[in-house]
Amino acid sequence: MAKTSLSGFPEWLPQQRAIERALIAALARAYELHGFAEIATRAIEPVSQLLAKGETSKEIYAVSRLQADAGKDAELGLHFDLTVPFARYVSERAHELVFPFKRYQIQPAWRGERPQDGRFREFIQADADVVGHTTLPLHYDAEMAIVIAEGYARMAELGVPPVRIGVNNRKLSEGVYRALGATDIAGVLAAVDKLAKIGPDAVTEMLLAHGLSAHGAQCVLELARLESVDIGADLDAFLARHGIASALAASGVNELETVVAGARAEVGPVVTADLSIARGLDYYTGSVFETTLVGHETLGSVGGGGRYDNLARAGSISYPGVGVSIGVSRIMSRILGANLTVASRGTPAVVLVAVNSEETRVTARAVARTLRTRGIACDVAPKADKFGKQIRHADRLGIPFVWFIGEGHEVKDIRTGEQFEADPDTWTPPSRDANIFVGPVG
Amino acid sequence: MAKTSLSGFPEWLPQQRAIERALIAALARAYELHGFAEIATRAIEPVSQLLAKGETSKEIYAVSRLQADAGKDAELGLHFDLTVPFARYVSERAHELVFPFKRYQIQPAWRGERPQDGRFREFIQADADVVGHTTLPLHYDAEMAIVIAEGYARMAELGVPPVRIGVNNRKLSEGVYRALGATDIAGVLAAVDKLAKIGPDAVTEMLLAHGLSAHGAQCVLELARLESVDIGADLDAFLARHGIASALAASGVNELETVVAGARAEVGPVVTADLSIARGLDYYTGSVFETTLVGHETLGSVGGGGRYDNLARAGSISYPGVGVSIGVSRIMSRILGANLTVASRGTPAVVLVAVNSEETRVTARAVARTLRTRGIACDVAPKADKFGKQIRHADRLGIPFVWFIGEGHEVKDIRTGEQFEADPDTWTPPSRDANIFVGPVG
Repeated sequence: MAKTSLSGFPEWLPQQRAIERALIAALARAYELHGFAEIATRAIEPVSQLLAKGETSKEIYAVSRLQADAGKDAELGLHFDLTVPFARYVSERAHELVFPFKRYQIQPAWRGERPQDGRFREFIQADADVVGHTTLPLHYDAEMAIVIAEGYARMAELGVPPVRIGVNNRKLSEGVYRALGATDIAGVLAAVDKLAKIGPDAVTEMLLAHGLSAHGAQCVLELARLESVDIGADLDAFLARHGIASALAASGVNELETVVAGARAEVGPVVTADLSIARGLDYYTGSVFETTLVGHETLGSVGGGGRYDNLARAGSISYPGVGVSIGVSRIMSRILGANLTVASRGTPAVVLVAVNSEETRVTARAVARTLRTRGIACDVAPKADKFGKQIRHADRLGIPFVWFIGEGHEVKDIRTGEQFEADPDTWTPPSRDANIFVGPVG
Repeated sequence: MAKTSLSGFPEWLPQQRAIERALIAALARAYELHGFAEIATRAIEPVSQLLAKGETSKEIYAVSRLQADAGKDAELGLHFDLTVPFARYVSERAHELVFPFKRYQIQPAWRGERPQDGRFREFIQADADVVGHTTLPLHYDAEMAIVIAEGYARMAELGVPPVRIGVNNRKLSEGVYRALGATDIAGVLAAVDKLAKIGPDAVTEMLLAHGLSAHGAQCVLELARLESVDIGADLDAFLARHGIASALAASGVNELETVVAGARAEVGPVVTADLSIARGLDYYTGSVFETTLVGHETLGSVGGGGRYDNLARAGSISYPGVGVSIGVSRIMSRILGANLTVASRGTPAVVLVAVNSEETRVTARAVARTLRTRGIACDVAPKADKFGKQIRHADRLGIPFVWFIGEGHEVKDIRTGEQFEADPDTWTPPSRDANIFVGPVG
């Protein structure tokens, strides 16, 4: 079979995959402790649904049966995130769910973008969202920032760098932009979103092209670059300074202040107001979140999300939500590329039972069976080779112990060479060896 | 958002998904205890790879960027199983793997078939395979039957019906068919595969159409329906009776006898020789396995697999393998449809902290935070409603405990109405309530 690797579709070796699983388990644990229930949605959605939710169509992968009768099937595509499928799930199953509905979901998504550092065509997202029936209290926005912080705190124990979780508010942005005369709010947001990448002069040009005055553009930039200590007072001063009397903006200031204060009260200064955050997707209506790895800012956002009041509907009922999405594959690519995290081995087996001869393999299998009954993952040597070769097989797999059956039973720690008597009914590996250990390098 | 459910793409409610996760965890545990390492492969493969491996093209879902430049991208498709991607993975990563390589993989696969009872267009498969470098000892074939038995034994604790694991051997079938004059072995296998569905007369007609004589067809049927007590002796008698002197068939008898005896020695009569097993995929070269739920035979196979000596290659090196695939979605559809398994709740939260007023929500959050730090999953009431309403919210979610903060702290078991003093620093839920419990109905 020819080599057929596809660019942008990452696949990991077993010991790398053990790291990815540890990241996923850390996030799942953080989500579950907050009462988020796990669900999975199908990979495939009608293209019309995907296109309706603010994604440029060229990034969508279309799906069709290879020999379908033309026009017979609905136009289908692979989901590009987990939020749009989740909104659809809520709309379809609303009468069977209890609201507010807290769910998390860790699955691949697909985008036909040009692969780059940390950007893949198939990538794993770890999402958590809360949706309410008709209304959803603001305290959930703070909880989402808290959950991101706790998820990253758990991943930090695995070697993932510390994060900075920025919060902004769309009502504030939109209120200010409208007061300054902007009509194409999405266009202004898109321009502000490019600030770090293309600088203030180029953004100013874009803002002028979107119909803002020179003074308006200057105000937009000033807001995006405002570094605040006391966010409420500083923003009130900004609005007063520029004579912006917008109920929408004032409401945004209020929400932003509440959310940041609520989150900081629980998880500290890792959460900050960041008025430069715009985010690409246009379904956000209030809080927006963006997360960067400290010291790895060029990697871009490793987690984001926000409040969406109009994404999910069923009949006349709306299901406002707030959610976050953490980019597992992007984090993976960085911690592997920068050699930050290591797994002790790729195989779950902690012990390899040596085989004296093919005739006595049954005896070795019986020992393995006893160990398994006691919850100890193990393997039996593939061949009755010389013991040196069997030990080398364990060593190459990273299996720390080899079990020998002679007149009695002995088990060897092949890292130290230590060998001692052992009984399959009672021997237990040290707890640090029992499972694959994932942790920071060094 | 309009209702857009797609037929053949199952999605579960949280408490159903908890059952699916329990099935997956049971299988993962069985695989890991045997030293299989988990990996994941990308969902997408070149169509040429998929077509080369014996799947009819109309069942493959093709994937293309919605606005791709014509002819620019490789022709891609969604994988229809996990064996073909695994063989490709081994070929690509051979120099980085340790052989024999034992891996398991639990992921969705896609086929554009007409949805039926237990047959979906998107379905989860739980695969385990061992591949060797150049050779792979036969004892791994027995281990695969053992692993299926152990996986199902773990699922039986969750309410999944008992299984019957049938084993056959392609060398035996092919040796006999060739000796009887057949040349289109795949065609004869496909006819035998239909025996249970269309009956012996229709199969005989198919066999005659494949060029077999009336006597040949009769022998093929006799073999498929042979019910054996002593498989080696009975098959030797069958071969002698019909004057079939085939080294290939004799080797198949030998392998079959060894594999069945090896598996039964460890897991008992759940594993049996079944000479009617043909299996559709034509990459099998030795042992073939098929699993049915006892009492639910009409559902079809819920797990199968076999030996493939020629699927994975890299240059001149072959990587023979043996593997099994368990149909998680098919099992799910049956245990839900027949109401065999139940989950205690959908949310991971075991306690809901009641909120006295929005002003004191911070106190409730502090209690929740303390509980979480101690590993207890919990949620805080969405609103400072009357306590009766907060208790009803917990009840609807299946959360067994509600925490009240008055002069002291109290926790109520809302199933019994019992209420007692509790300290967030020491209270621990009963272990049967700590996590979502999945088990047989009744």
